[in-house]
Amino acid sequence: MTDHQRKLLTVITEASLEHALCERIEQLGAHGYTITDARGKGSRGKRDAGWGASANIRLEVVCSEACAHTIAEALRKEYSDNYALILFMSDVEVLRPEKF
Amino acid sequence: MTDHQRKLLTVITEASLEHALCERIEQLGAHGYTITDARGKGSRGKRDAGWGASANIRLEVVCSEACAHTIAEALRKEYSDNYALILFMSDVEVLRPEKF
Amino acid sequence: MTDHQRKLLTVITEASLEHALCERIEQLGAHGYTITDARGKGSRGKRDAGWGASANIRLEVVCSEACAHTIAEALRKEYSDNYALILFMSDVEVLRPEKF
Repeated sequence: MTDHQRKLLTVITEASLEHALCERIEQLGAHGYTITDARGKGSRGKRDAGWGASANIRLEVVCSEACAHTIAEALRKEYSDNYALILFMSDVEVLRPEKF
Repeated sequence: MTDHQRKLLTVITEASLEHALCERIEQLGAHGYTITDARGKGSRGKRDAGWGASANIRLEVVCSEACAHTIAEALRKEYSDNYALILFMSDVEVLRPEKF
Repeated sequence: MTDHQRKLLTVITEASLEHALCERIEQLGAHGYTITDARGKGSRGKRDAGWGASANIRLEVVCSEACAHTIAEALRKEYSDNYALILFMSDVEVLRPEKF
């Protein structure tokens, strides 16, 4: 892992959480985030309440591996029981490491 | 590959295919998908009909490697001759592997 | 690296740059690109002008590693001083390598 390696954490969740989530990930150390509107289908958490199309957001954070794990774990604990929440992360190479 | 590794399959195609594509990828084993509206430019399949900006969708599926290959291969066979279709996949780590 | 490996270059920047950026990346060798509207927060370049939500775009290019580095380096030089600009790249596997 060179010093240009970071994690891209992608969070797909309900649009109503946008404000709360953005505050939370900044508290947890993210230097920035990107949000796009999305729609989709998936099982909703543990409730198994069936499937439904709904307004979602797709939130991306590029940060250190430690920060990505901290954010992902916090969101999972705080939101996955009651909200549709998908989390995944991947390796990315950044050009300006001082920004992340 | 640990049991938290999955594939992220990204499909970029014409917006008119959204309904058909969603049905198809569920038939092929996807547990969910995320769609965002997109625009872009690219060569359109084999027709080489020039380039043009058009309404596209960007569809993402997180699933097993086998499922990602099944979906990608099926979409390629069924749509790439007649529609603009871009397919690529990457490695992602998921937090809750039971969901994918 | 098999011949199906490419780079996915993601550029997140100000919406006002869309036209100029699309022209530039085609000049630099991209065969296509995908754009989605986005919003977000981040430090704005070197100006440290504080943080603000603003209209962004998220531009994706799948291309060879050399092409991705050429585009990323050019955009960094030409835009990062005066515009909000995030660049990162990751490995992707494509199904139809002749298209990229």
